Amino acid sequence: MNTDKHAPIQWQFSRRAQKLESSAIREILKVTMRPEIISFAGGLPSPETFPVDHMRAAYEKVLSKQGKVSLQYGPSDGYAPLREWVASTLSTDGACIVPEQVLMVSGSQQGLDLLGKVLIDEGSKVLVETPSYLGALQAFSVYGPQFESVPTDDGGLLPESLDAIGKDARLLYALPNFQNPTGRTLSVERRHALVESCARLGVPLIEDDPYGALCYRGDPLPKLLNMNPEGVIHMGSFSKVLTPGIRLGYVVAPEPLVRKLEQAKQATDLHTAQLTQMVVYEAVKDGFLSQHIPTIRKLYADQCQVMLSALEQYFPEGVRWTRPEGGMFIWVTLPEHIDSMKLLEEAIEELVAFVPGAPFYANAPQKNTLRLSFVTVSPEKIREGVAKLGKLIKAKL
Amino acid sequence: MNTDKHAPIQWQFSRRAQKLESSAIREILKVTMRPEIISFAGGLPSPETFPVDHMRAAYEKVLSKQGKVSLQYGPSDGYAPLREWVASTLSTDGACIVPEQVLMVSGSQQGLDLLGKVLIDEGSKVLVETPSYLGALQAFSVYGPQFESVPTDDGGLLPESLDAIGKDARLLYALPNFQNPTGRTLSVERRHALVESCARLGVPLIEDDPYGALCYRGDPLPKLLNMNPEGVIHMGSFSKVLTPGIRLGYVVAPEPLVRKLEQAKQATDLHTAQLTQMVVYEAVKDGFLSQHIPTIRKLYADQCQVMLSALEQYFPEGVRWTRPEGGMFIWVTLPEHIDSMKLLEEAIEELVAFVPGAPFYANAPQKNTLRLSFVTVSPEKIREGVAKLGKLIKAKL
Repeated sequence: MNTDKHAPIQWQFSRRAQKLESSAIREILKVTMRPEIISFAGGLPSPETFPVDHMRAAYEKVLSKQGKVSLQYGPSDGYAPLREWVASTLSTDGACIVPEQVLMVSGSQQGLDLLGKVLIDEGSKVLVETPSYLGALQAFSVYGPQFESVPTDDGGLLPESLDAIGKDARLLYALPNFQNPTGRTLSVERRHALVESCARLGVPLIEDDPYGALCYRGDPLPKLLNMNPEGVIHMGSFSKVLTPGIRLGYVVAPEPLVRKLEQAKQATDLHTAQLTQMVVYEAVKDGFLSQHIPTIRKLYADQCQVMLSALEQYFPEGVRWTRPEGGMFIWVTLPEHIDSMKLLEEAIEELVAFVPGAPFYANAPQKNTLRLSFVTVSPEKIREGVAKLGKLIKAKL
Repeated sequence: MNTDKHAPIQWQFSRRAQKLESSAIREILKVTMRPEIISFAGGLPSPETFPVDHMRAAYEKVLSKQGKVSLQYGPSDGYAPLREWVASTLSTDGACIVPEQVLMVSGSQQGLDLLGKVLIDEGSKVLVETPSYLGALQAFSVYGPQFESVPTDDGGLLPESLDAIGKDARLLYALPNFQNPTGRTLSVERRHALVESCARLGVPLIEDDPYGALCYRGDPLPKLLNMNPEGVIHMGSFSKVLTPGIRLGYVVAPEPLVRKLEQAKQATDLHTAQLTQMVVYEAVKDGFLSQHIPTIRKLYADQCQVMLSALEQYFPEGVRWTRPEGGMFIWVTLPEHIDSMKLLEEAIEELVAFVPGAPFYANAPQKNTLRLSFVTVSPEKIREGVAKLGKLIKAKL
């Protein structure tokens, strides 16, 4: 047979696939993988926090005691003991979450994709914070929503703005704790107001909470989920408190939605790896996280403080930044005339990198913003990198 | 705050989610998990074939030598050494497959979902075999295609039928080796004709090949991929030759499509677990599969022979079945007046289960068909179960 005589296939991608783009930023940031670059661009947790030996022991235990079960196909909704653990862990502040409300997923990003698949039609109104998590905008975009940006201030999302824009929205997507990208936290009062507004408007409220446990001091704030389990969809992840490379998270939602998500999950990838779920259950069931998470909090709090001090020292007047109470990110607002994308190009020449803020906006990008992560860079390099950025910014004033 | 006063959310699912249904068959088959049932319904590989100790050693090695890297986020296209291994393993029959053509996915089912996402619009024509793999129909259905069933005979798909129906199709989906559900194999002549037809019509041809290595005798037949790497999308999986519970497969396609799939993969779940990929690379890189796969072939060939003999002995005249040369399934065609769904209800009373054939048809289901799997049932139980089914069928003649 000779197929050479035929023209190569002209790929006709679906309209949704045409919305997927190679990001210019991603291309630029590829160079930031070079070891000589001081990169504040990462969204990665610090590998210093990975409990390698603990995970290794858990793999050894599961594979030696339950090898064949762990390597076989499993149920689409997830490994039952782990779903029970998630439900029981989330049953705080008087709320009772049951295992039937829990769907295990292959990392939070998959939760976003499944929620988009099940809740968003072409043209559906979807409410997001200003700015919002880039990965969520990407996951939802595929399904063709009309994004409506909910106004925010330094305290995060403004619940009172929902009355004007919330009607008929398919969902509201929020990160109440140490938001990616801004590091902002929503106050308890605003949480109540937000939950109340969404319940009144009949809008499903997604609480994406990968960083909630990483508060630098005090206890985590109450979850939106527990304020109204009938109307809130909670997303959690083991990526930031255990390790991300295993890809494990969960969606907790009212049962009618969970059953629909389970059907979508089955059509999407059958189920999340059974071995991974059994190992994580083994790793967390005896309270390991309650000893482990404080060590992550301490490290990130210290690194954050180093960066805040360096910003104070090296950044000129007219630049503003957030002061996170947890999580992994600081958000910087430059004077309006400075485009952070252009600044990035210059910064890379100086061997420093960050993520420009524009792609985090669903609408009307503010080009004078940028995101800094401090968790994977040493204190010394944090100071050196911030000093270099400060110098570049000063030159533009 | 009191949200009790608000009505519970009226879930408005997307139109695509409304197409997802809880299958009546799945509900019935739930009872087949009971240990007293002789189940020919499974699509699971035999856990007897899982190389538990080999996997355990691979986990131990990766976690002890590369713990932090394996537990960190990884690239969306997959772990580079494993992509190289896949490319090199598939470069046979004179074809040269490069790692840039390989995307690692979380099991073949995810490959199907990503291909549907990227290639299918509402109303797109999608060609499938008659019957076809149920999981593919489910994965594609979400994206709203118009399925066109390609005629088949006992030798599988009829390539000459494409001229009449293939024009403007977005893709053709085929399982050339030991097809699920029929166990049929496409001859070398038909493979060439199929590849040639698709190339001529400009229709991307998906070769789903989870069972290809499981031939009972001789060598595997040549892959469609290697007949025309420019026009064929090949899907492979570690589920049937290593273990399914880790969820690992791959899509091999022309580069423009792989880059688009990679973007979709990133928006869908960022990447497939880094640890899993590193461990599988460790497990296969030194040729383990070439010793291991023959043991699976031998087991399945023996079990298949037991079932074929039992069918010969216990099934009445007027019933036909396939005689697979590999894989996990036998397809049975009953006399036209017998509905296999009703037969299943009676069979479950007798503690035997199988999968009725109707859901495997995209159009015009043949209700007198059913699928039998022989790989997880002991020879004695195979004979007992087939005898019981034979009795039930005879009573209907």
